[in-house]
Amino acid sequence: MPVNDAVIPIAGVRIGTTGAGFKRTDRDDLAVFELAPGATTAAVFTRNAFAAAPVIVARRHLAAAMPRCWIVNSGNANAGTGAGGERVAIETCERVAAIFGCRAREVLPFSTGVIGEPLPVAKFDAALPRVAAGVQVDGWMRAARAIMTTDTIPKACSETVRLSGGSVTVTGIAKGAGMIRPDMATMLAFLATDAGAPPGVLGDALREAVDATFNCITIDGDTSTNDACVLAATGATGVQVDTRDSADGRIFVAALTRVCEHLAQAIVRDGEGATKFVTVAVSGGADAAECRAVAYAVAQSPLVKTALFASDPNWGRIIAAIGRAGVDALDPGGISVAIGGIPVLRAGVRVPDYVEAPVTAVMRERDIVLCIDLGRGAASARVWTCDFSYDYVRINAQYRS
Amino acid sequence: MPVNDAVIPIAGVRIGTTGAGFKRTDRDDLAVFELAPGATTAAVFTRNAFAAAPVIVARRHLAAAMPRCWIVNSGNANAGTGAGGERVAIETCERVAAIFGCRAREVLPFSTGVIGEPLPVAKFDAALPRVAAGVQVDGWMRAARAIMTTDTIPKACSETVRLSGGSVTVTGIAKGAGMIRPDMATMLAFLATDAGAPPGVLGDALREAVDATFNCITIDGDTSTNDACVLAATGATGVQVDTRDSADGRIFVAALTRVCEHLAQAIVRDGEGATKFVTVAVSGGADAAECRAVAYAVAQSPLVKTALFASDPNWGRIIAAIGRAGVDALDPGGISVAIGGIPVLRAGVRVPDYVEAPVTAVMRERDIVLCIDLGRGAASARVWTCDFSYDYVRINAQYRS
Repeated sequence: MPVNDAVIPIAGVRIGTTGAGFKRTDRDDLAVFELAPGATTAAVFTRNAFAAAPVIVARRHLAAAMPRCWIVNSGNANAGTGAGGERVAIETCERVAAIFGCRAREVLPFSTGVIGEPLPVAKFDAALPRVAAGVQVDGWMRAARAIMTTDTIPKACSETVRLSGGSVTVTGIAKGAGMIRPDMATMLAFLATDAGAPPGVLGDALREAVDATFNCITIDGDTSTNDACVLAATGATGVQVDTRDSADGRIFVAALTRVCEHLAQAIVRDGEGATKFVTVAVSGGADAAECRAVAYAVAQSPLVKTALFASDPNWGRIIAAIGRAGVDALDPGGISVAIGGIPVLRAGVRVPDYVEAPVTAVMRERDIVLCIDLGRGAASARVWTCDFSYDYVRINAQYRS
Repeated sequence: MPVNDAVIPIAGVRIGTTGAGFKRTDRDDLAVFELAPGATTAAVFTRNAFAAAPVIVARRHLAAAMPRCWIVNSGNANAGTGAGGERVAIETCERVAAIFGCRAREVLPFSTGVIGEPLPVAKFDAALPRVAAGVQVDGWMRAARAIMTTDTIPKACSETVRLSGGSVTVTGIAKGAGMIRPDMATMLAFLATDAGAPPGVLGDALREAVDATFNCITIDGDTSTNDACVLAATGATGVQVDTRDSADGRIFVAALTRVCEHLAQAIVRDGEGATKFVTVAVSGGADAAECRAVAYAVAQSPLVKTALFASDPNWGRIIAAIGRAGVDALDPGGISVAIGGIPVLRAGVRVPDYVEAPVTAVMRERDIVLCIDLGRGAASARVWTCDFSYDYVRINAQYRS
């Protein structure tokens, strides 16, 4: 069951997009997802203490009612905007509710873009009727484009699996491409399935999938204020997933996880300035937490990332990052490192027959796997990241200017 | 008592340097500090679990005897070299001992440069007699140059203060310029005074000075495997500092701290690719630890650092970094931020009369102060850092290649 890059519409989800003028270009920057009555929604949000206004409002609305609409704008994150920003997020929901015929608390708002600028709520007035007039089930790719900020390509994915009651599909879109070190979900991801599921089951499934995918990526170590990942189950197929632990439940979670994995990896591959896709796999830890600490220390080390950019097998920078990861009583003598499957360090020292040329060759590839074994237990963790290039600096020195 | 950039020799310390061929150029890359009999030494070392071989040997030797010589090479860090590297560090000390007439355990070895390459001990054989023949009291600036790796300027500093028994001088040199996020001391710093002090007092004074200076800088968040900061007290003036808590002791520690501060700031100013010197001052925290966590999250955020490079007052990136610093129950509504003394955020929201132009103007300066108040206590912390430029990527993509 390979992941399908062609996007399959989800019955019960209609999508409209338009250019509302939040961005300085005339690209689409507004999308509304309209869910059929009876659809359930689950979501995970950023743990950043400076959670953006739409995150605060979306959390509150989701606790109060099952959503009928999701609205997302790019170009302005409505973050760091205080009580005023919260009022704008609520007013946005009220405007959507008026036009789409639901209650304001049945609308979840999402925003991405520059932090700290007031979000001009009036721009929704002209735009929303256009969006409402154009909603259609195959709006996913246009929505994937509308939510882009520094992304260079839209990210979308579908997967169909057969459950005992029939086939169901999971479709999702996501955006990166900077401030990416999700602590709960990535920047923004919108997912839907035509299976039905109670909100509790949907939430458990989403958290399981997100933990194994979006929560394993890092581009720059900066957790966004606007991270959100949201999943609707429309039940349009009549096929129901009533528990995560049944055979059907496991198949559904696996499909959801593959869609999330595809989107998470797409975010890393399109990371700001990225030229490499890097898997940091840490094994042999005493627990998963220390494996994650080591994986992130390596994946976020500017020195490791610039060496990756240069295709330089500078494993000294890798062991320096391992050594500063804060793992208690770590014994360097137990550590092994392999680059692209080639052992370079065994029991804390360079392998006796080390030859650099083949390691340089694997470093030149687009996809690189760094394997680190801590030699002190059975736990493991895996993080996906990218390299650090001139373009990362260019993009982030120019963005907003 | 301003810090004096002119380096004042320390009676009781003679220094020799040469080019031993560890670097690919013909620059000096080896220095020996010869201490007069009776001199005491204190040191602090990296907490990186992959402590380099010379760090391991230096710790052991310092515990066993008061040093008569320090030997330092650049161009090769002798790190990640396991038991073989340790033997090389010990053999280096033996060679120094034979030529300078002391015991091997009275020699402290230091190395800086590329990690993971064997250090060719034979190169010391030809070099050490040249070094021994050339030792002189005014060798400090040549040593400051010999220990440079990616540093662009040598870093040295002296300060003379009057104690009750007479004037004493503290002189020091240091090197950066990457893998800088000291967890105990910086890359390498060598200090000496012509005051006398018992080893315990000297160690306490050094730790106090280092905590307030070298331990407050970060260039890239990468703690080195070879960090070491060492201080000798020759007692050549006959002026003795017998306790840290006397008036003399406080004056001495203050002078030592100013020398360390000058060197620490010089390391940041010469950080790889740095175009800005940035002070991140965090106040209003519940304790110093959370203030430090916030200061480092901001100082090490690639997004903040690229905004600094661009002179872009993108305070949204600052609050996103504050929000992900892991401070428990942080209330965004209590947080204020000022850039270059200009308030931009008060009680979690942008100041009502915010105008960007003057903030952009202060961001264009070489020295920038970011003040963050957490609004929940009386603790504070301060970190020095630099920006993140194209040249950082260039230097670290090319280094070693």
